[in-house]
Amino acid sequence: MSEIPNFKDILSAHERIKPFIHKTPVLSSESINKITGTSLFFKCENLQKVGAFKFRGASNAILQLNEAQRKKGVATHSSGNHAAALALAAKNAGIKAYVVMPENAPEIKKKAVKSYGAEITFCTPTLEARESTLQELIKQTGAVFIHPYDNSQIICGQGTAALELLQNKNDLDIVMAPVGGGGLISGTAIATKGLDTKIKVFAAEPEMADDAYRSFKSGMLLPSVTPNTIADGLRTSLSELTFKIILNKVDIILTVSEKSIIKAMRLIWERMKIIVEPSSAVPLAAILEHSLMFEGKKVGIIISGGNVDLSNLPF
Amino acid sequence: MSEIPNFKDILSAHERIKPFIHKTPVLSSESINKITGTSLFFKCENLQKVGAFKFRGASNAILQLNEAQRKKGVATHSSGNHAAALALAAKNAGIKAYVVMPENAPEIKKKAVKSYGAEITFCTPTLEARESTLQELIKQTGAVFIHPYDNSQIICGQGTAALELLQNKNDLDIVMAPVGGGGLISGTAIATKGLDTKIKVFAAEPEMADDAYRSFKSGMLLPSVTPNTIADGLRTSLSELTFKIILNKVDIILTVSEKSIIKAMRLIWERMKIIVEPSSAVPLAAILEHSLMFEGKKVGIIISGGNVDLSNLPF
Repeated sequence: MSEIPNFKDILSAHERIKPFIHKTPVLSSESINKITGTSLFFKCENLQKVGAFKFRGASNAILQLNEAQRKKGVATHSSGNHAAALALAAKNAGIKAYVVMPENAPEIKKKAVKSYGAEITFCTPTLEARESTLQELIKQTGAVFIHPYDNSQIICGQGTAALELLQNKNDLDIVMAPVGGGGLISGTAIATKGLDTKIKVFAAEPEMADDAYRSFKSGMLLPSVTPNTIADGLRTSLSELTFKIILNKVDIILTVSEKSIIKAMRLIWERMKIIVEPSSAVPLAAILEHSLMFEGKKVGIIISGGNVDLSNLPF
Repeated sequence: MSEIPNFKDILSAHERIKPFIHKTPVLSSESINKITGTSLFFKCENLQKVGAFKFRGASNAILQLNEAQRKKGVATHSSGNHAAALALAAKNAGIKAYVVMPENAPEIKKKAVKSYGAEITFCTPTLEARESTLQELIKQTGAVFIHPYDNSQIICGQGTAALELLQNKNDLDIVMAPVGGGGLISGTAIATKGLDTKIKVFAAEPEMADDAYRSFKSGMLLPSVTPNTIADGLRTSLSELTFKIILNKVDIILTVSEKSIIKAMRLIWERMKIIVEPSSAVPLAAILEHSLMFEGKKVGIIISGGNVDLSNLPF
């Protein structure tokens, strides 16, 4: 599982999942370009199935199961988009999915996972409970554990978003993605450098969950202790695998304040007329905070997802 | 101005405006298809410049001015998307735009029109004041009045959205658009029937502003008296020109309740992750209310715009 994938693996993943995913549009906004002094190209994975890039990785993993594994099904623990993505990809393939969720997960996410037919086991909301409940479940069912990011098949799937972006727009100076557990930025970096080593890969991370920034700077894997950011998709910490890829392929990690995340999120909603979750706004927040670094540049941004509770907006 | 345009005029309009507009994506949602028992294809004009299809018509009108007219500029009265569209299209062409707006227009719309460099004249919020202020302005400046819908160049521009939709997806059973003043549905009907007379054209209208429905049924132009719908883009009444086209080319007009509009709007936000204004949700509201009529059908829907005040949502 923990092998570092290469560019060819991402090309293969793309061929594999292409019939099952949305080829999401790449959108631009003249007014955001004017505000930032850049040319931005947003790859809209909020418009992907289940509303997040996670469907790419989950599909790539599901489609590589052998017959014996297909019979046992897949399992994961997640309170977020990976759970919904795995549930839908499994359902489409006629495979059983088991999801361990903390009992305090948002009602809307429980409903989404259930609507895709996954079997949910609730546990107390601690990492220990999630892991032990999952272990127990796997022992009972024999299901294959599909980790949300510490898994090279998942990383390859996530990298296909940047691949499509660069196939659409090949003269970018920089490609950016947010970093949480590191699956998206790892796949993005392998795809981008595989196509053109001259293109820079920038990761963007909330200050309040800056384990990737600190790890990158120190050269040692330093997990977050109590991450507390509005960007709920980015509270996870890097794994050994994603850290290795990031050290090797990412050019820079920029951190941003909570205020900038909300400002950038609102800017995208107002000017682009698309719904993005806070995590998706983190790269634009970095451009707003570090504007000189981006002046005059052509920047591709992976918009990671659009799953927000409309009754509970930060503006 | 009040000549009925034909299909060839829409093709010419498309060639004329193509370099200046966004070719907006056509999106689908499996979950909305499942809920409605249909296959829906949303042509996303909320992602058009200025956030509405209005930019197509305004561009088509501006690009046909002669040199003398270009020097005088253009004028209109509007508190909505047409004002912003005309202002931006004029600005891009280096032409002056004069806009009469009611003094109580939403701050966000005043700001948009101003940001595109238009000269705004405020008036008291009555139709009489708007028209007399505009007449006075035109007398002083010699600017060309570009009516928001009672204008064949505007109608042709609006029809290019359906043209692009059908070029992308040519096996539709039905094409739907909301109806307010009738510019969008007129252009949509001419484009659709011009491509394939077998495709039905359905208009959708709020019950609370049902002048098109009543006019269509009675065969007489019956304007709304006090339209009061959340779909602010649809409070206007048909003109002689748009009524003639609708009588001739539209197959059916369906009306919907305010509750259905809000429900459909929320469904689009939640499932499709795009921001649409209430007017845009009216066709989906009609499908929800009249579901048997649509069962198993392939339906194209023009999503008209995405300009909403995020601080004042109906949910």
